[in-house]
Amino acid sequence: MTKLTAHDLAKKQKEISVAEFFERNKHILGFGNATRALVTSIKEGVDNSLDSCEEVNILPEIYVEIKNHEDGECKIIVEDNGPGIVTKQIPHIFGRLLYGSRFHAIRQSRGQQGIGISAVILYGQLTTGKHAKIISKVQQDRPAVVMELAIDTNKNRAEVINRETVHWDKPSGTRVEISIIADYKRGKRFVYDYLQSTSIVNPHAQITYKDAEGEEYLFERTAEATPKKSCEIKPHPYGVELGTLIKMAKNTKARKLSTFLKTEFSSMGDRTTNAVCEKADLDRNANPKEMKREEFLALHRAFKKVKIMAPSTDCLSPISETLIRRSLKHETKEISPEFIITASRPASVYSGNPFQTEVGLVYGGTLPRDKPVQLMRFANRVPLLYQQGGCVITSAISSIDWRRYGFEQPSGKGMPSGPAIFLTHVSSTQIPFTSESKEAIADIPEIENEIKLAFRECARKVQHHIHKKVRRKKTREKFDLITKILPEIAKKSANMIDKPIPSLDAVITKIMDIVWIEDLIEYEKVSRQPVQTTIIPDKESDNTRSEGTITKSKIMVVNYKHNSQKFNLYALIPKDAVVGSVEPKPAKIANNYIKWNLGTIPPANKVDVSFELAGLEKGDFDENDLYVENINPAFVIGADKWEGD
Amino acid sequence: MTKLTAHDLAKKQKEISVAEFFERNKHILGFGNATRALVTSIKEGVDNSLDSCEEVNILPEIYVEIKNHEDGECKIIVEDNGPGIVTKQIPHIFGRLLYGSRFHAIRQSRGQQGIGISAVILYGQLTTGKHAKIISKVQQDRPAVVMELAIDTNKNRAEVINRETVHWDKPSGTRVEISIIADYKRGKRFVYDYLQSTSIVNPHAQITYKDAEGEEYLFERTAEATPKKSCEIKPHPYGVELGTLIKMAKNTKARKLSTFLKTEFSSMGDRTTNAVCEKADLDRNANPKEMKREEFLALHRAFKKVKIMAPSTDCLSPISETLIRRSLKHETKEISPEFIITASRPASVYSGNPFQTEVGLVYGGTLPRDKPVQLMRFANRVPLLYQQGGCVITSAISSIDWRRYGFEQPSGKGMPSGPAIFLTHVSSTQIPFTSESKEAIADIPEIENEIKLAFRECARKVQHHIHKKVRRKKTREKFDLITKILPEIAKKSANMIDKPIPSLDAVITKIMDIVWIEDLIEYEKVSRQPVQTTIIPDKESDNTRSEGTITKSKIMVVNYKHNSQKFNLYALIPKDAVVGSVEPKPAKIANNYIKWNLGTIPPANKVDVSFELAGLEKGDFDENDLYVENINPAFVIGADKWEGD
Repeated sequence: MTKLTAHDLAKKQKEISVAEFFERNKHILGFGNATRALVTSIKEGVDNSLDSCEEVNILPEIYVEIKNHEDGECKIIVEDNGPGIVTKQIPHIFGRLLYGSRFHAIRQSRGQQGIGISAVILYGQLTTGKHAKIISKVQQDRPAVVMELAIDTNKNRAEVINRETVHWDKPSGTRVEISIIADYKRGKRFVYDYLQSTSIVNPHAQITYKDAEGEEYLFERTAEATPKKSCEIKPHPYGVELGTLIKMAKNTKARKLSTFLKTEFSSMGDRTTNAVCEKADLDRNANPKEMKREEFLALHRAFKKVKIMAPSTDCLSPISETLIRRSLKHETKEISPEFIITASRPASVYSGNPFQTEVGLVYGGTLPRDKPVQLMRFANRVPLLYQQGGCVITSAISSIDWRRYGFEQPSGKGMPSGPAIFLTHVSSTQIPFTSESKEAIADIPEIENEIKLAFRECARKVQHHIHKKVRRKKTREKFDLITKILPEIAKKSANMIDKPIPSLDAVITKIMDIVWIEDLIEYEKVSRQPVQTTIIPDKESDNTRSEGTITKSKIMVVNYKHNSQKFNLYALIPKDAVVGSVEPKPAKIANNYIKWNLGTIPPANKVDVSFELAGLEKGDFDENDLYVENINPAFVIGADKWEGD
Repeated sequence: MTKLTAHDLAKKQKEISVAEFFERNKHILGFGNATRALVTSIKEGVDNSLDSCEEVNILPEIYVEIKNHEDGECKIIVEDNGPGIVTKQIPHIFGRLLYGSRFHAIRQSRGQQGIGISAVILYGQLTTGKHAKIISKVQQDRPAVVMELAIDTNKNRAEVINRETVHWDKPSGTRVEISIIADYKRGKRFVYDYLQSTSIVNPHAQITYKDAEGEEYLFERTAEATPKKSCEIKPHPYGVELGTLIKMAKNTKARKLSTFLKTEFSSMGDRTTNAVCEKADLDRNANPKEMKREEFLALHRAFKKVKIMAPSTDCLSPISETLIRRSLKHETKEISPEFIITASRPASVYSGNPFQTEVGLVYGGTLPRDKPVQLMRFANRVPLLYQQGGCVITSAISSIDWRRYGFEQPSGKGMPSGPAIFLTHVSSTQIPFTSESKEAIADIPEIENEIKLAFRECARKVQHHIHKKVRRKKTREKFDLITKILPEIAKKSANMIDKPIPSLDAVITKIMDIVWIEDLIEYEKVSRQPVQTTIIPDKESDNTRSEGTITKSKIMVVNYKHNSQKFNLYALIPKDAVVGSVEPKPAKIANNYIKWNLGTIPPANKVDVSFELAGLEKGDFDENDLYVENINPAFVIGADKWEGD
């Protein structure tokens, strides 16, 4: 064998086009097999449609169709009523990988890579050799453009095959038609599941789906308002990488360090900026372009040493606990679950990217007890259907010891088994997906931690719930005994000795020796709204909140102790509910609770407490969460110790 | 709110540089957290070094060092004795993502994406703001080049900061020094594990590792020959995508379809080419550049209808069952396993890419019985350390019902629990990794299937092994009873009636009624070789095979049936062993077995069979696998029914 040298090897070293790379590695984009390719293609189309509608504040109306030809070929059609795409951008958006509008903006959106839809076109031409067809209309009074295009993978550029204009009976919108090789028979179930899950977390979207057999499905809109639009923000100093900081300083227009910090980062006011400069021992007026690596290093370290306000969460658009609860309730009707619990975390930051976690837990009913819990994963309102094993959501859940919450879990690690559905939604300006196919979230410690904290809170609530139920049941038995048998004995005894029946209050309170709190929730329809309409609690639609359903909570506090009691009562309320009339007059109405300073309750007396909530649907709030203060909670049944806000 | 239009959105739509994309999505490249970043950086350096040494047939000597500075900064050093890199290519190889020599070649290699090492440099500058340093020497009699460089992420091009020449006391080689932010304390364990695992599957490499505390570890070379160099091949018609076929035809220099097929694909001889053209109803002389999509479609379909030879496996470099067995045996010495079983599959194809699966299973000993089995995953001789949950190896194993092979597995799915280590090695010209970090293999159905088949074979062998052991033990008890008690009785009876002791053969054979096969394996050192040297069975080092250790297998066949027996005996032998003397003369020596037509064996007689194997180390072959033909296997203890090759 002749010995090769570095010069021989150099002849083979050359550039790889990004399109060529992904053509070869199509599984990275979610096209690993013909089943998944079908779902991925639809998903990329629908995600794009939802994003573009939301960007211009249009209520999305999306039409999805699959036409199944022979030999495993499918034509995928996704059409929307969004703003359309200007003609000269069509070849870039659809015919190039790594091109888009959402990559450089820091705010929550579904697409963020500029790969999705062009990847579908790449996959389509790779497997069928056919061109993609794009129809776009950007203005009511102008015709639509129809473009047929292919991707030149050596150059990562579009090849426009044909272009014409047509009349399109729509104010504006985009329609893509792409032929791909796909396994329709196996994939159709996943397409339905994906669209249904999408509809759950996007109640403002209407999705019509026509399958290859011609069957039409309608996923109805249940909310008439688009979600609060996520705003674009600047990077947050916590977690910004040193290299990024240096790069930003090189490119800034600011001539002073203080201006640079205040204009190019979020949460940097005058005071924080001064504090950072001081900690870093840097001149506020230094020119950022002339600073040295060591100075940036000092600045970078100073960021971590100064308390900087968390980034604004305007850039995020979480689903909300109420909506998660409602979706879960709706989706699990047939299971008749024992309870549904939700938890959400405040926004947090990883590598300068804000993110927020919301979780839900459905327990009991007819869910199987010996199977692993079902997992529903969402990221930026997009369902994640594959790669569950490689997702941080799975590893976060697996690291919690679920055995003490009534789940089976060998050695206290791994996915627990039990009658439950776990839902997780992570929203972020930048979801760290493990790959370009966006099917799993990478194991970023900050995110794993937040998911764990959210589920721990859920788990505590589960424990609390079970505990409360057991205690109440036990006391109830005692209570029934006393209130039925004691009066009977008293009556008989009185009769026997021919005396009036004595008051048993003192005896009962002596035996019971507790404060008993019982509650009831009722719903009342308000007639001004048509019955079918669903109102989504949303900060932007406050004016509609007082209509629809009124949730009425009635609480009865009975003092079964032998001396008078005087204490404070707290009732938790959903953050997005509007509080109506409250009886008696509360001491405080906070964002998420109502507080009463209850007057003195003599032994064997009771006090009625009630409040009304608007902005919720029937069943959104179906269980009171009550707490007491200034009384030993061991003597209270139906409420726990108030631990502070 | 003013309503945005498509024109407003168009202003934001722009190109994303691939470096910028990965800078933002560094977790996709394996830099998701500071622990993993450390291992990934070392891994990319070492993989590159191994690849380049093998390319020019140099036995790799690799030096790895980590220097740990304050504030979580580590300097990673990887040095090799490979061919070096020519000066003008250094900025491209290290300062650009998607640039390399191995992407366009179809053959097995570790790096295939042209991303790895430049990603480490990107991560280094992002987190520390420091430049990378590369030293390269390509020729014995010339100085080395030292280059300091950074990556301009907006352009995906290198920025050369400094360049000089120095004397380097080495014939040729490459050294990279990169500073990164990394969690040394947590990561060091993984670095050691990675290097150890690498050494297991690369016995020809010598790796020296100096950790941040100055401790030096040597992973010694145990094989003196580089593995068979994998050859570059052409794409195979099975699985080549229609779009790729069209693209190849557009770029071909061939003017005739038949020439195109014969020169640009593997396994396409005259006969196959004709058969394909005929099936596709295409003219052999058609100009491929002028063919229409429909004609390519017909051609593409014809590929699947004609039997085409599997691709040459020259492009692959599997580890070999013997070496896997030996590694496992070596690594599990302290566990004292009950048995080690290996299985390998013939090469197969997915999307035109040949691949091959090898698996090993270590069972019993001190391995924990109540924990999930340990999994060791390898791809192209590289250990996969992360993302086990998202890997096709995990899902393939999880889909097998392991309960009947003595493992615990709730509901017959998921990773089984039991005292075992499962090793899997997938080699391919193109490993379909789930992401650019190359930590998990995507769930390609063809690969999943091959892994399943390999493990099923393992599982069957486990069952066979347990079955044989139980049966032999049972018969042995009977045998002991007969051979000890019967002669005693016979002796006493003969004494009592004063007659000679009768022959018991007929009685024994009547009671036993079986053919008993027992075996013994011995090893003999051949003195010509130094004792420490390990010989790796390798097609290129045939001349060294007859030296080292001779494995001697001795088999005794005893006929305990009451009539004469005449049957054939088969002994399996490792594919890579060389057969020495065989007694008696065999009927056939095939690639993986020896066959004897045993002469007639009268009742109570025995036949001795023996063979010698060279090219193996002591213990590589430590249990005979015997089969019989032309006899009812129910009457044979120690061998099973021969089912054909």
